[in-house]
Amino acid sequence: MKHDRILLDHGSGGRASHDLIASLFLPQFDNEFLREMNDSAVVAIGGTKLAFSTDSYVVDPIFFPGGDIGSLAIHGTVNDLAMRGARPLYLSVGFIIEEGFPMADLKTIAGSMKNAAAEAGIVIATGDTKVVPKGATDKVFINTAGIGIIDPDVNISGQNARPGDKVILSGTIADHGITILTCREGLQFDAPLKSDSAPLNTLVAEMLATSRKINVLRDPTRGGLATSLNEIAGQSRVGIRVHEEAIPVRPEVQAACELLGIDPLYLANEGKLIACAAAQDAEKLIDIMHKNPYGRDACIIGEVISDHPGKVFMKTIIGGNRIVDMLTGEPLPRIC
Amino acid sequence: MKHDRILLDHGSGGRASHDLIASLFLPQFDNEFLREMNDSAVVAIGGTKLAFSTDSYVVDPIFFPGGDIGSLAIHGTVNDLAMRGARPLYLSVGFIIEEGFPMADLKTIAGSMKNAAAEAGIVIATGDTKVVPKGATDKVFINTAGIGIIDPDVNISGQNARPGDKVILSGTIADHGITILTCREGLQFDAPLKSDSAPLNTLVAEMLATSRKINVLRDPTRGGLATSLNEIAGQSRVGIRVHEEAIPVRPEVQAACELLGIDPLYLANEGKLIACAAAQDAEKLIDIMHKNPYGRDACIIGEVISDHPGKVFMKTIIGGNRIVDMLTGEPLPRIC
Repeated sequence: MKHDRILLDHGSGGRASHDLIASLFLPQFDNEFLREMNDSAVVAIGGTKLAFSTDSYVVDPIFFPGGDIGSLAIHGTVNDLAMRGARPLYLSVGFIIEEGFPMADLKTIAGSMKNAAAEAGIVIATGDTKVVPKGATDKVFINTAGIGIIDPDVNISGQNARPGDKVILSGTIADHGITILTCREGLQFDAPLKSDSAPLNTLVAEMLATSRKINVLRDPTRGGLATSLNEIAGQSRVGIRVHEEAIPVRPEVQAACELLGIDPLYLANEGKLIACAAAQDAEKLIDIMHKNPYGRDACIIGEVISDHPGKVFMKTIIGGNRIVDMLTGEPLPRIC
Repeated sequence: MKHDRILLDHGSGGRASHDLIASLFLPQFDNEFLREMNDSAVVAIGGTKLAFSTDSYVVDPIFFPGGDIGSLAIHGTVNDLAMRGARPLYLSVGFIIEEGFPMADLKTIAGSMKNAAAEAGIVIATGDTKVVPKGATDKVFINTAGIGIIDPDVNISGQNARPGDKVILSGTIADHGITILTCREGLQFDAPLKSDSAPLNTLVAEMLATSRKINVLRDPTRGGLATSLNEIAGQSRVGIRVHEEAIPVRPEVQAACELLGIDPLYLANEGKLIACAAAQDAEKLIDIMHKNPYGRDACIIGEVISDHPGKVFMKTIIGGNRIVDMLTGEPLPRIC
């Protein structure tokens, strides 16, 4: 352990988060499920393959363009289930609320959760509410845990990328991260920024109906696209090469990132996925993704290679070739 | 809605908590699972009956005699699953940690969780860690969600109490609540107080192996024995009569409660259960419970009656008969 106190960086989703899990949690809780380091565990109960996942949501501000902490808490866990190819079924919800929190805001958040759950087709089956004294927490935190069902022949994991696979991205990057950052800093831009928070389970179901040669799915949330690609490269012991000009970024997001000196590769997304799929099925997948509202900008951004296992390379627009590392340092806490 | 802001009382587990759920959450999330108001939802997946439950743990102090926030976070959710007659299988864990929290304390907590999970025979299959800036939370909060499997012929619910059932209590009350309260107030007593935090799944399994005529199980946590009995009476539309002299309270707990002017009936327990079971099997159940370390003081404390549905009565030691209501007002926030 390099530190004797928890730093913000330990919650970034990047290098320090991985170190904390590897050095503190895994030695205690070690088992086959956690060791996989995937978005959800896959467990077999009574002959059925289930995905099981949890996330706590601590985003600040709790209301932002494109969503709020309630919709985010549904989308985030639905997406973690979908990233194992699961059909989300049931959610648990745990609220931790600060004394004095406005009842009207709680009602708005619950309404967002209801709508988000309805769109994703998931049922909020169980819940818990804790209230802590004023100052013991900041407004409201929400935990959701989810269960989904996986078809017997679906086997999607961060460990399954194979050399030759195409790397597919479902749309533009950094929309959520830059929206939260500019909201928090009180910055205004001409073209309004908006979180991409969305449920991806229908998109995934359509992809799986088109091809069973999808080896990896991951939603690049905390730590952004760069961190997720590094996780896949590390888990699968492969190299990944991406092409900078292929990665879609909205012009207004690009402009805000340049102004703030932040690399969009490291900003969170809450409605995007990365897929590694057999090259022969890649175009077919792109075609089907384009028909879904959450995959309209889907594109192939690179390929899995056998050289340099664990590393991610980017062919830059000006023709260079650079190593893209995991996020180190936390530019922006409480992103989700 | 009677209040425009969240009060501590809304998290007490008592009347105000029930009002918040009924007036705000149920209208939004309404479905058959939530409407049952049980400790866990029971869902059928692929022909298998599963219990699914969540709780967030915000106890202050995080270390206390008899346990810590880590062991409590395992026991609490294991017990919520066991209260539907489920065999606990998998847990998710979500940490929300304050920046600057000592790494050594986190390690101690993770160690407690490991030991508690091992005793309960449950696997921590998936997790999440968030870090929030100093002051945005108090030390550490933990959410756990759990999945357990239920035998097809087991049907335990707060709605199933029947007139004639005996009401069984597995041991002494108020140990957890009084321990947290005296810790927080810095009070010292001659006889040391200790939380009863414990996993009850093995006790429940042994009870179910002895009798399938157990209709209700409930662990009287927040709001104490009085609130849980009222919940059962309300859900099952029956009356419940208990006998004050039958309810076991440790002398040191009784003394501390008298000193502080607190009724032990309303203090939290974290290793006790209430069962409503057919009268003919009650003695058999008590016998088997006495053989389990967590049921050594098990006893029959009363019976389910058809009169006065929704009400709980207590025959007092001095011969009176009083109505025992749900907890109203929050004597002690952050108890679990």
